[in-house]
Amino acid sequence: MAGHRPQLTQAARPATFEVTAVDEHGARRDVPVAGEHPLTIYVDKREILTLMTLGAAPEALTIGYLRNQRLVGSLDEILAVQVDWETNSVAVTTRSGLADLEAKTAKRTKTSGCGQGTVFGDLMQDIDGVRLPAGATLAQATLYELLDAVRLHETIYKQAGAVHGCALATNTPGGSQILMFVEDVGRHNAVDAIAGQMWLDRQAGADKIFYTTGRLTSEMVIKAAQMGIPFLVSRSGLTQMGYEIAQKVGMTMIGRATNRHYLLFTGAERFRT
Amino acid sequence: MAGHRPQLTQAARPATFEVTAVDEHGARRDVPVAGEHPLTIYVDKREILTLMTLGAAPEALTIGYLRNQRLVGSLDEILAVQVDWETNSVAVTTRSGLADLEAKTAKRTKTSGCGQGTVFGDLMQDIDGVRLPAGATLAQATLYELLDAVRLHETIYKQAGAVHGCALATNTPGGSQILMFVEDVGRHNAVDAIAGQMWLDRQAGADKIFYTTGRLTSEMVIKAAQMGIPFLVSRSGLTQMGYEIAQKVGMTMIGRATNRHYLLFTGAERFRT
Repeated sequence: MAGHRPQLTQAARPATFEVTAVDEHGARRDVPVAGEHPLTIYVDKREILTLMTLGAAPEALTIGYLRNQRLVGSLDEILAVQVDWETNSVAVTTRSGLADLEAKTAKRTKTSGCGQGTVFGDLMQDIDGVRLPAGATLAQATLYELLDAVRLHETIYKQAGAVHGCALATNTPGGSQILMFVEDVGRHNAVDAIAGQMWLDRQAGADKIFYTTGRLTSEMVIKAAQMGIPFLVSRSGLTQMGYEIAQKVGMTMIGRATNRHYLLFTGAERFRT
Repeated sequence: MAGHRPQLTQAARPATFEVTAVDEHGARRDVPVAGEHPLTIYVDKREILTLMTLGAAPEALTIGYLRNQRLVGSLDEILAVQVDWETNSVAVTTRSGLADLEAKTAKRTKTSGCGQGTVFGDLMQDIDGVRLPAGATLAQATLYELLDAVRLHETIYKQAGAVHGCALATNTPGGSQILMFVEDVGRHNAVDAIAGQMWLDRQAGADKIFYTTGRLTSEMVIKAAQMGIPFLVSRSGLTQMGYEIAQKVGMTMIGRATNRHYLLFTGAERFRT
């Protein structure tokens, strides 16, 4: 099934909408605001859940959600992903059904956070099986190239705020390139959409860098580790559990990264200055 | 049952922990990071879900979660809330059990977002019944007092970042006061903890202002409306659906509010300059 690609709609929504606001001087201003739409996922006609999303990459988001929730084990299982904004729904057709969907969705009710919606206990078990490539290294100069590339990237955030962005970039000395950049109202949607697009583009994680504008919580670290990406970079800070999990899996994690500033929190043995 | 107060532990966790990081100059620095802990909620010995939390107000968070999820209709139904960090769990004892818990928790699997974890369809139905007080007004000077009070407030964010904060403040001309200020790793936890503390302190929403550092998404607006608070203020931006719901319920919503700047998005008829 090498080269299998599901049948996909291309149903991105407009990212921003204009509303009129009044500022502190009493002046009326047209302000772009980020879109937010419910999207209910059906797998083989069975309702799974409703995500609130910007709608920039609904097909990749759906695939990545199913991937990161461990509901689908490989892209080959997915025959079609069809988004219909008239009904705010996406219909996923699988090759042979999802085996233990009942058990898995029952368990999903047991988690939350803003970090909500994933099977935390299962994720923590899975993480024990993750092996990140020991030989991979990241040069400080490559990190700076990535931060420059992110800064120059046109973003919805710059226009409208209220979104988080995630990027997948190459770890190429002399020219780190952004391969994917996804923004969404929730940072977990953005990372799920990247995970989905990585499957669609048959991209591995080992030779990549994952960048997020969002905080390095347990869930963000776990998802990056599951994608096999050894380098996680954020503009924001981290939590204690994010730190502990990154240490446990041997991930190189860098926070507060803007311009020529950063804090290297874990995995210093892979970092070259 | 006026004056009924459940039996509560006082089990706040330390908010920050120190880790050692290496900065861009190669210097080692001790950096405070926000705590993040799993907390599994049991109601009458039945497991409901696991929240990831800073742990600053776990009892109020638990009560507010049950309130905002519509699992408990009044504080009088709750006899005890007992947090045990050795097992990362909180045991809630109710007066007479939760009637339709089965149906309600089954439905919860149907939602997500970063904005995850609430019964979106049900929330949207409930919102039709919300009536915010028509006569309430907010003066620009009072808004500025609130923003000053927030700025002066000692926060975990200033120390460690990676948290969102929510505040409940009085709408008193000449002296808006912060009654509660809660920070958590997810903004939805912070707003839930405020909702729980409002029940414990028997505070109504009509004469209050709700402040959040987080974005004004659909879920944030819905929760503020359910608490009966006519004024919602954020340092951040908003989403299209947050805007639409605020308009629908007649809430006065102000974003991008820092120092002497703000954007008044909805409910201008209640705002006085």
